[in-house]
Amino acid sequence: MSILILIPIALAVVDLFFVFYVFNKIKRSEKGEGKALEIAKAIQDGAKAFLIREFKTMALVFILVAIVLGLIQKTYLAPLMFLFGAVISSLTGYLGMMVSTMANVKTAHKAQKNFAESFNISIWGGEVMGFLVVGLGLLGIILAWGIFTGFKNAELLINYAFGASFVALFMRVGGGIFTKSADVGADLVGKTELGIPEDDPRNPAVIADNVGDNVGDIAGMGSDLFESYVSSIAAAMVIGSVAFTGSQGIFLPLLLAAVGIFSSLVGSLFIKVSKELAQADFAKQTTGIRKAMGRGILLANALMIIGSFLVIQFYVHDYKLFIAVLLSIISGYIIGKSTEYYTSEQKKPTQDIAIATQAGPSGVILEGLTVGMKSSVIPVISVAATIVLAHHFAGLYGIALAGVGILGVLGINLSTDCYGPIADNAAGISEMADLPPEARQRTEALDAVGNSTAAAGKGFAIGAAALASLAWLVTFAQQGGLSSVNLFEARTIAGVFIGAMLPFLFASLTMKSVSHGALEIVNEVRRQFKEKKGLIDGTEQADHKACIDLATKRSLKEMSFPALLVIVVPIIIGVILGKEAVTGALLGALSSGFILAIFMANAGGAWDNAKKYIEAGNLGGKGSEAHKAAVIGDTIGDPFKDTAGPSLNILIKLIGVVALLSLPLFI
Amino acid sequence: MSILILIPIALAVVDLFFVFYVFNKIKRSEKGEGKALEIAKAIQDGAKAFLIREFKTMALVFILVAIVLGLIQKTYLAPLMFLFGAVISSLTGYLGMMVSTMANVKTAHKAQKNFAESFNISIWGGEVMGFLVVGLGLLGIILAWGIFTGFKNAELLINYAFGASFVALFMRVGGGIFTKSADVGADLVGKTELGIPEDDPRNPAVIADNVGDNVGDIAGMGSDLFESYVSSIAAAMVIGSVAFTGSQGIFLPLLLAAVGIFSSLVGSLFIKVSKELAQADFAKQTTGIRKAMGRGILLANALMIIGSFLVIQFYVHDYKLFIAVLLSIISGYIIGKSTEYYTSEQKKPTQDIAIATQAGPSGVILEGLTVGMKSSVIPVISVAATIVLAHHFAGLYGIALAGVGILGVLGINLSTDCYGPIADNAAGISEMADLPPEARQRTEALDAVGNSTAAAGKGFAIGAAALASLAWLVTFAQQGGLSSVNLFEARTIAGVFIGAMLPFLFASLTMKSVSHGALEIVNEVRRQFKEKKGLIDGTEQADHKACIDLATKRSLKEMSFPALLVIVVPIIIGVILGKEAVTGALLGALSSGFILAIFMANAGGAWDNAKKYIEAGNLGGKGSEAHKAAVIGDTIGDPFKDTAGPSLNILIKLIGVVALLSLPLFI
Repeated sequence: MSILILIPIALAVVDLFFVFYVFNKIKRSEKGEGKALEIAKAIQDGAKAFLIREFKTMALVFILVAIVLGLIQKTYLAPLMFLFGAVISSLTGYLGMMVSTMANVKTAHKAQKNFAESFNISIWGGEVMGFLVVGLGLLGIILAWGIFTGFKNAELLINYAFGASFVALFMRVGGGIFTKSADVGADLVGKTELGIPEDDPRNPAVIADNVGDNVGDIAGMGSDLFESYVSSIAAAMVIGSVAFTGSQGIFLPLLLAAVGIFSSLVGSLFIKVSKELAQADFAKQTTGIRKAMGRGILLANALMIIGSFLVIQFYVHDYKLFIAVLLSIISGYIIGKSTEYYTSEQKKPTQDIAIATQAGPSGVILEGLTVGMKSSVIPVISVAATIVLAHHFAGLYGIALAGVGILGVLGINLSTDCYGPIADNAAGISEMADLPPEARQRTEALDAVGNSTAAAGKGFAIGAAALASLAWLVTFAQQGGLSSVNLFEARTIAGVFIGAMLPFLFASLTMKSVSHGALEIVNEVRRQFKEKKGLIDGTEQADHKACIDLATKRSLKEMSFPALLVIVVPIIIGVILGKEAVTGALLGALSSGFILAIFMANAGGAWDNAKKYIEAGNLGGKGSEAHKAAVIGDTIGDPFKDTAGPSLNILIKLIGVVALLSLPLFI
Repeated sequence: MSILILIPIALAVVDLFFVFYVFNKIKRSEKGEGKALEIAKAIQDGAKAFLIREFKTMALVFILVAIVLGLIQKTYLAPLMFLFGAVISSLTGYLGMMVSTMANVKTAHKAQKNFAESFNISIWGGEVMGFLVVGLGLLGIILAWGIFTGFKNAELLINYAFGASFVALFMRVGGGIFTKSADVGADLVGKTELGIPEDDPRNPAVIADNVGDNVGDIAGMGSDLFESYVSSIAAAMVIGSVAFTGSQGIFLPLLLAAVGIFSSLVGSLFIKVSKELAQADFAKQTTGIRKAMGRGILLANALMIIGSFLVIQFYVHDYKLFIAVLLSIISGYIIGKSTEYYTSEQKKPTQDIAIATQAGPSGVILEGLTVGMKSSVIPVISVAATIVLAHHFAGLYGIALAGVGILGVLGINLSTDCYGPIADNAAGISEMADLPPEARQRTEALDAVGNSTAAAGKGFAIGAAALASLAWLVTFAQQGGLSSVNLFEARTIAGVFIGAMLPFLFASLTMKSVSHGALEIVNEVRRQFKEKKGLIDGTEQADHKACIDLATKRSLKEMSFPALLVIVVPIIIGVILGKEAVTGALLGALSSGFILAIFMANAGGAWDNAKKYIEAGNLGGKGSEAHKAAVIGDTIGDPFKDTAGPSLNILIKLIGVVALLSLPLFI
């Protein structure tokens, strides 16, 4: 056991102290009062209720899966590590979300007096989630490795990653269905039938909609990236244990993760906005925040590059490994920029969608699909180039390290990403609680920036998922003793076909689930308005809990079939057609899933922002025919970008882990 | 040289005599009079003008490509065979389309008096195209092989197939852009802005719309299947020349094609409807036609199965090869049935789309996308099973024979498919020329059946393209000396990623082209209505030619970039990353292109029929809010099913041929 293990442990502990410190700052901030606090409490209670119900459902499934794992691998360590991974990931999601639902109302409250502090609370809320994920993720790996195997069999870490993957499946897919069922359901009755505004508390589904932002965009996003983070480190350790004769191959990923945490921490200290912004106009405020975040992220990336160069140079003495890490950081940057280009209302593609509203709804939808499909080109080429070059310079281990590299500064990236839904909720609460106009204007400014960071975060999450999934593919090859899988073998080709079809099926099922869920919410909202005569004029209270309950039950029910599919299909393929076909299926699912996920996320983001572009007064503004067409585009984009698209991240990773764990069953 | 070659030659000649016989029957039929004839002439002239302009553009490109081919392969035979293939394919498309534009008005004319004869003329029109494709296709292969190589180097036939592929690129992609530019453009001004009916001759784009049906659905579809037919036979011959020591491997595909022609001819003789149908109601008429066609196709398939069993048993003495052929016939049948299930207004998926109109346009679009994505599952599994089993029983040659098998009875399949647009045009002409109500009702009945056969034809064309494309992939492996391509090689993985992205890019570009083209048509139609004051009340004539000219020029211009892409990308990948990466790219493009093509074709078909279902009086009928939502779905479905979807067939095949021909350039 090398003394070097203390470095990542130390950094993870510092990271968790930072989380605690930031959490205390949020906690100490005033929590506001009156209606805002009531609404915030309703959101927090709803989110908690969702997670607890989900954890209960998961408990049984997890115990079953743990037993199966133990039987297949014939060691009690496998189920223990699996459950350990599941608990750490669940804990991360739960804590992160509880803090974010605490931060939203405090952000809204502070916005009444102090813009800079209001911003601080929302970014702190994001930082709690961001740094919990990397801190607990890294510490968890080291503990799992140390406690269960005495720092010996790195390949058992796959079980730890599987635990995280399985949690992500529930959080991301279940959460994705929940959030859009509530959102679409609320809009269909509220905005379309009754003509009441978006965040109107008279609408019984409006709290469920806000709960959805937290369970989908915060807990779901967090667990997705927790999985990617843990997967890429674990996969790199497994591959490194074979690629190197010494222990360097195993330790390097941990050291790089430590460098990443250090870089993220330093970077995040530089995300500060000046007090004068409070008096500035909307454009200056958003620019100010963007600059502050950009500065922090740039610094973090620079430190990550320098740090990983030094670590690799002095620890492994092989600059080629550094190239793999560098390339993946650049690739992540390019994917982020490409996402921004295709979804920003200041750029041509989204403006083209806005212009296409003049040809009616079909124009805006065709244009959005066109933009989404085209937006896959740059990410695909940059990932493909990273794969080829990382492999050229550093072999299979290089590909695995690329996964670690792209997630290096996940701490700060995820912070700015989770800041988005907190700001969004703060704006919603300000609206619902009738806070003074300046508070509403300021939370709107925070929200506007949050939309961009959330969109870029989605692109980044997909890229990270692709590299993590690729790391599993490579591990599958190595552990399965497949030095070569012939692409011309009929079974491989059949595997690629079936694998490439899975993301389409998965997207179809999750979108259909949203329709089902939304329909149920619509009926419930209609029922309440019919039975409670005083609801529309505000003399009676809406039963928000009923909608949250419905969406919770429905999302858990709806996710069961797609979830089963991800687990069963690779096993069936392996048992009937063998390892080669499974490899083909993994690659097919990875390539088509990656592309489909980008297409859906970007089309959805672009539709959303095309609508906002029109609402800002362009092309006729709010209420015009163009705006109506844009709203239709946005409604289609919602399940694209918040349910089906992100769920594909889970699909492509989980299918790889399941295949790996089922290896002993295959012919 | 085996005397057996006389069998396919004889069958091809009989086939062409049959075409001539049927053509004469159409020619002898009365051509009608007055306005109907005028309109028909305008359509025919427009279609001719389009093809001639296209041929002129093609001429230069083809000569350039021919020179490059000669330089790469270092033999003058290559360019000659390429040009020969191009000429035969162009001739087929031209002749078939001219006859179909002659048949449409005669169908409309006959409908006034005799329902059975009216049906006969439209199915004869389809048969001319269907049997021209197989007759000239097969005869062309044999002639090319005999004349240029003295029945020796079968592998040079790739050049013949390439000629056909390249023509298909122009016809299918150019035609697809033409037809939807005209259609969408005509609808946007006519139906939406001015509120005049669909087939109203006052609309200057209405003739262009009808021309589009012919160039897209007849010439385009014909050239697509000509390419698949020729490709699968040629690929099977090339692979067979290596797989067998004797010449059986080369002759078997030709003999099977001959069996297919015989079976199709016999089957088509049984497509007859009774004279009493004229007096029957709409439902009985459509059922009667469906039964007649079903009978013919069933008989043809039965004969094909028996015939190929006998040929294989007595000529090659290996029943295992028969299994490959049988499987592909079954697979084609399943794909057709699956297409029918997902797009028929009598089945649940399409009715679900119709019901979703009650949630407005976004409901209908989400439901259509859901249905389209899910509809890829059955075709993918059936193709995957065919690949695995065909390979299991008969090796790589088995995969190639599967391509020949699925296209065996192409003659009769394509006849019923091309019948669709003829009936559609006949209905349009009846409407525009104000023919008596019974003629209009009867052509509507013909048209209704045509919609089903056209939809099933699309599914079949995609399945055939996938198997033809797979045959090229296998040939690429064989000719490139690639006995094994390792899937774990980074360059292979990168190839799969880039390949899988190409169909998305291609679909995006072709859909965008339709938007561009439609916009130009919209402006032209608006201009005419503005400048010609008497147009709207019928005192002035619309300038139909101007719209046809515009759409022709625009479609040729728009197709140049996607076309270039298909040709350049595999070469770039091969030159930079080598053969393994190209193999990956071919498989990536094939799998994702196949799935995307089915998704787009079926979503488009289902939206179209959901609209028709509502128009038939369900859910509020024509003019209701539900109908408006369905129209939006249909407008999105149009470029899905008629431009982007079918263009993907060309992409997946052509990319394989280009890769194969560029082999000498790759590292």
